[in-house]
Amino acid sequence: MTESKSERDARRNAGLGDIYINTSAEPWINFSPGIDFKLLRTSQETGTWTALFKCAAGSSFARHEHLAAGEYLMVSGKMDIRGGADGGGVTARAGDYGFEANGAWHDDTSFPEETVFYFTNFGPIRFVDDEDRTIAVLDYKMLREVATAGWAKLAA
Amino acid sequence: MTESKSERDARRNAGLGDIYINTSAEPWINFSPGIDFKLLRTSQETGTWTALFKCAAGSSFARHEHLAAGEYLMVSGKMDIRGGADGGGVTARAGDYGFEANGAWHDDTSFPEETVFYFTNFGPIRFVDDEDRTIAVLDYKMLREVATAGWAKLAA
Amino acid sequence: MTESKSERDARRNAGLGDIYINTSAEPWINFSPGIDFKLLRTSQETGTWTALFKCAAGSSFARHEHLAAGEYLMVSGKMDIRGGADGGGVTARAGDYGFEANGAWHDDTSFPEETVFYFTNFGPIRFVDDEDRTIAVLDYKMLREVATAGWAKLAA
Amino acid sequence: MTESKSERDARRNAGLGDIYINTSAEPWINFSPGIDFKLLRTSQETGTWTALFKCAAGSSFARHEHLAAGEYLMVSGKMDIRGGADGGGVTARAGDYGFEANGAWHDDTSFPEETVFYFTNFGPIRFVDDEDRTIAVLDYKMLREVATAGWAKLAA
Repeated sequence: MTESKSERDARRNAGLGDIYINTSAEPWINFSPGIDFKLLRTSQETGTWTALFKCAAGSSFARHEHLAAGEYLMVSGKMDIRGGADGGGVTARAGDYGFEANGAWHDDTSFPEETVFYFTNFGPIRFVDDEDRTIAVLDYKMLREVATAGWAKLAA
Repeated sequence: MTESKSERDARRNAGLGDIYINTSAEPWINFSPGIDFKLLRTSQETGTWTALFKCAAGSSFARHEHLAAGEYLMVSGKMDIRGGADGGGVTARAGDYGFEANGAWHDDTSFPEETVFYFTNFGPIRFVDDEDRTIAVLDYKMLREVATAGWAKLAA
Repeated sequence: MTESKSERDARRNAGLGDIYINTSAEPWINFSPGIDFKLLRTSQETGTWTALFKCAAGSSFARHEHLAAGEYLMVSGKMDIRGGADGGGVTARAGDYGFEANGAWHDDTSFPEETVFYFTNFGPIRFVDDEDRTIAVLDYKMLREVATAGWAKLAA
Repeated sequence: MTESKSERDARRNAGLGDIYINTSAEPWINFSPGIDFKLLRTSQETGTWTALFKCAAGSSFARHEHLAAGEYLMVSGKMDIRGGADGGGVTARAGDYGFEANGAWHDDTSFPEETVFYFTNFGPIRFVDDEDRTIAVLDYKMLREVATAGWAKLAA
């Protein structure tokens, strides 16, 4: 008997690794002071990772260098990149899209109000001090560890 | 004289190709019957493309094979993948996240109500008929052409 | 007791998916008329594949469009790309390197003498007729199928 | 008049960024003690880089962590990875192929005889001391700088 179209598809789709997450059912996990996240995907093979971030009013990401490009969609709030629009950079609002190129340096990304955004980075980010010395290399492994530790804390 | 931190960053960030789009200021461009899009990024080098799609109630994407993985965040509405939750597949709602693996076959992705979602695909998608014969290979080039033609029509 | 450096590394390297192939111990598998290959790696996740090709004098690859970039190192012999150096294209010899961009069209890649080259492609290649209609989309799945069929034939 | 097949291809291939390098006409550039290289391609967009390395007998690469996967083809000589075959690791010889996964730690990669190999890495490599503290993050930018400095020295 011939395989039907839906049988063919089911056979071919088995084990491919699709992901579906009802994100509103997931808890926020603390990432850094004032910043929580929901880790949606990490790839050991490529180093790519995708997450939702929720940043409290007044919080910020420290100085960093992109060791891979990143891409974001703003869900709500306001994000000031490289000083924000008033400082010669960009101020992103709900619905806005951005691509941060591989090799880019961001001194300070800050959130004047509570902000949620969706973010994919195609590899690691190197956090540095003002002299550009490495503080930490944030990669898929570290994100998994932070998420795992956060879940453990919630369960305790 | 020593280069300051912000001078160093400005020098290093020059010409890297960052993108920032205030998407609400962009018009919707027609993609296919009932489906509009805003093309946010296409990469000739990698074939990756990112877009917002707005799908009218009752619209759908035709049968296709993923020649590269894709990733989405639902902004509003409802998307039935592989028959939806009632048909053994997935029904994604606002805030939901999904990863569609390279090599996956999707027979029909339909929208029971008006839906907006953000989507990145890391390469081409092959649209096929019920016998899996190629109808069209949707890649960064075709998306650019559709977007350019749409803009031209709006300007006419 | 503290974990030693080599214990740390062993723990962290477990299950990462390293590959090592003594290629001279592998048989050549037929790929197309006059062309054999040894498939070294295919990635379902990214669609990337790497192979060694051995092309008989007079053999050639048919007209195709790159749906992803490719990269090669010539091991021995001579490869005429886009007509070869005499025809306005490139003639690659042992030791030469090339990068074929995503989106490139190659009408005919031919081998005036027996040639071995190492090749990585970061996704699919679309073979087309002279009117650019799709004949076949060569991707990681098809390569696995050709390799598996070739091994079965050798074992028969 | 209709565009011919070769006119179509020429139009579509213009500006795509193909690369062809007659590597034997390029000089070896010093990379580190005992190790020379020819840099074949670096991508700012993806961070991927490809090079030929020539390693003197007795030379080695220092302890490092792969912040992206790598892939190699041995051209000549002998490379001992993770202690070599005698030490529980791998000894690669001319013609051999290897894939080094993202996230892998390599304590010492050494060359008991003069060795040439072709190598692609899909992003950065972090060199570390025995306590895993960052010494340097080798990425496409640093490789370009080393290559540029090497060319300048040759021209001096």
